[in-house]
Amino acid sequence: MATFSAVELIIAKREGGELSTDAINWLVDNYTKGVVADEQMSAMAMAILLNGMNRREIRDLTLAMIASGERLNFETLPWPTADKHSTGGVGDKITLTLAPLVAAFGVAVPQLSGRGLGHTGGTLDKLEAIPGWRANLSNAEMRAQLESVGAVICAAGSGLAPADKKLYALRDVTGTVEAIPLIASSIMSKKIAEGTASLVLDVKVGSGAFMKNIDRARELATVLVQLGNDAGVNTSALLTDMTTPLGLEIGNALEVKEAVEVLAGGGPQDVIDITVDLAREMLRLAGQPEVDVAAALRDGRAMDKWRAMISAQGGDPDAPLAVAKESHQVLAEADGVLTKLDALAVGIASWRLGAGRERKEDAVQFGAGITLHAQQGQPVRKGQPLMTLLTDEPVRFERALDALSGGISIDPNAVESTKQIVLDRVTA
Amino acid sequence: MATFSAVELIIAKREGGELSTDAINWLVDNYTKGVVADEQMSAMAMAILLNGMNRREIRDLTLAMIASGERLNFETLPWPTADKHSTGGVGDKITLTLAPLVAAFGVAVPQLSGRGLGHTGGTLDKLEAIPGWRANLSNAEMRAQLESVGAVICAAGSGLAPADKKLYALRDVTGTVEAIPLIASSIMSKKIAEGTASLVLDVKVGSGAFMKNIDRARELATVLVQLGNDAGVNTSALLTDMTTPLGLEIGNALEVKEAVEVLAGGGPQDVIDITVDLAREMLRLAGQPEVDVAAALRDGRAMDKWRAMISAQGGDPDAPLAVAKESHQVLAEADGVLTKLDALAVGIASWRLGAGRERKEDAVQFGAGITLHAQQGQPVRKGQPLMTLLTDEPVRFERALDALSGGISIDPNAVESTKQIVLDRVTA
Repeated sequence: MATFSAVELIIAKREGGELSTDAINWLVDNYTKGVVADEQMSAMAMAILLNGMNRREIRDLTLAMIASGERLNFETLPWPTADKHSTGGVGDKITLTLAPLVAAFGVAVPQLSGRGLGHTGGTLDKLEAIPGWRANLSNAEMRAQLESVGAVICAAGSGLAPADKKLYALRDVTGTVEAIPLIASSIMSKKIAEGTASLVLDVKVGSGAFMKNIDRARELATVLVQLGNDAGVNTSALLTDMTTPLGLEIGNALEVKEAVEVLAGGGPQDVIDITVDLAREMLRLAGQPEVDVAAALRDGRAMDKWRAMISAQGGDPDAPLAVAKESHQVLAEADGVLTKLDALAVGIASWRLGAGRERKEDAVQFGAGITLHAQQGQPVRKGQPLMTLLTDEPVRFERALDALSGGISIDPNAVESTKQIVLDRVTA
Repeated sequence: MATFSAVELIIAKREGGELSTDAINWLVDNYTKGVVADEQMSAMAMAILLNGMNRREIRDLTLAMIASGERLNFETLPWPTADKHSTGGVGDKITLTLAPLVAAFGVAVPQLSGRGLGHTGGTLDKLEAIPGWRANLSNAEMRAQLESVGAVICAAGSGLAPADKKLYALRDVTGTVEAIPLIASSIMSKKIAEGTASLVLDVKVGSGAFMKNIDRARELATVLVQLGNDAGVNTSALLTDMTTPLGLEIGNALEVKEAVEVLAGGGPQDVIDITVDLAREMLRLAGQPEVDVAAALRDGRAMDKWRAMISAQGGDPDAPLAVAKESHQVLAEADGVLTKLDALAVGIASWRLGAGRERKEDAVQFGAGITLHAQQGQPVRKGQPLMTLLTDEPVRFERALDALSGGISIDPNAVESTKQIVLDRVTA
């Protein structure tokens, strides 16, 4: 491998230059080994944030991060594979409904997920609310479950893209999280290393999302879709609304409960709609003919896959879920239409109630969170419960209520509306 | 002191915002203590490099770096004080001629200097070529010498601006050296902490200098002059040429020898001219009336101060200086005018001959360096010696000659010219 000077590469990017493929490979390899120091990589990350990277550089960075670790391969499975990645939202339990639904149509879903940090929950935290369920599978167990069930959601092992893991932790403390080339290579290095043949990105837009406006979300989606296809993964993206929470339940066990309702043919319309739209996109990319996706939610096929998937990882799909010990009702202060129920405010309130963690080593409360009794756009009456706050520790109510302040508006003159969830689609 | 988040401050600067006085104080204080990590400070340095700082921020940064350590005060001396700082050049022995010359007019010069790293030499390395001379003085010794002799050149103790020392080492390995706010605060924090009442900056321009073009040099000079005056130090700057070496000698003992020639009333005209111009500027800022500066070089007053200054620090002004064991002549390849004798090429060649060091812990060869037999703009004859390369280790000649390749041009049709050294003056 060619040899470079870290300082010279930083200066090149600082001056708006391009980094060659060899230079990027050298940088990532030597950062992983500790030859390039954290303080050099953070200066580089800031230069990338402010000066950008072109499509070829982003692809090279992603491939170098993949090359820093192991890469799974499911090409010899008896069926095609497809996965979904969400950039994170409030009440986003869609992985739970989507993986079994897609598997019901003969497309295997090999999903490596993470835990939550901050106001957006983590899929593994949610599933761990199911008694007995375990997140850590070996590669052989993951493959066996894909063959027997067709869907697996488990923890990403430390062997996948270790360079990304190290760089992500660095970006978090150096103000360099928000760089699109770094966001894109972080997401895609893990998803490509995971071995899926097709991938749909759910890029969230709005107050509760990482991307606050649609232009920036579209920019990220475009980079992600190009990157996936450049690396040989059939990739597309949906831009979806995250100005207000998805569904009525926010919190770990609460979201499992709502996902099971949807898999049983019920549940809130927005959760059904986005599940169906994402499933259709995954099946399309995986080359499956047009099918009646929603039917599999109504006729029990998706539920059967769910039960098999949970059982295969030691979970008891019939076990009662944790329930919070304490609750507090938030009432509507006027008659009118609920014109604002802000995703970020609700997400932070739920986090403060104990559904999320402050530090990586914290545990989450499975029963904590928020149950909504009305969604944005719906009419409410003064004094009716708008939401129920749930926690094991009543001392948490006050700070959760603080977070909600300014996040709720009722307009007596507004008209009822239904929210549009899927805002746009980005394809190769 | 107010409390801040390092990440939030990095993001603010990254987004082009201003950092408050309190924020800058917090940042520098906590970086010095190790609470703000190197990887955070390097991301901040890159954000400052790319997004800049305004005049108030640069002043605050400089004052915070001064506040991180001790500050000397010479206000109770019986005479005014003035100092000079050069941004570094090839053959720049001007501190050696200037300090005794200014002291000869009753203005004390309290100069804290450094050692060389890279192709520009360090004043302390040059003076250490004088047998017995010692660079390390206590603050009390420094003050006593200013009272008895009126001039002192010694090593900056670690107590001055420790935040700058730490930040400078970080910038060196993170590609963030070239940020004007950081260059300016680094230079000025040490000079202001040193306790001088007046300061003249010699900002070098050209191939052998840090600033390669006059616009960028003028920008740096303007920031430095504003900063000095904002902090209560009478400050001005001269922009001086560094496309070709100063004088005929490059190397430690060689430059001492040339400085002594100038103090004895001889020496090359360019060294005399820049010494006199800088002395005049220092005396003007220190409030001394118009005097015939050059006379003090001719009549021995400056030489008397030199001998007293060297003796006071244990040096023997009459001791023979080290002479290199080996020499190699570089001959003119044509008749014509020496139109190019590149400062950077000569500086690197001298460095490779052993006059400079590669790593901080290396020793320099006192006798190594280059003696020029012609200056840029002068006529030469084919076969005459252009320069003599000097070193104790003949193995070094080859890489020195490599460095010179492309750095010398002789034009048979060009006309003789005299170089202009002082290009401009920047005042408050």
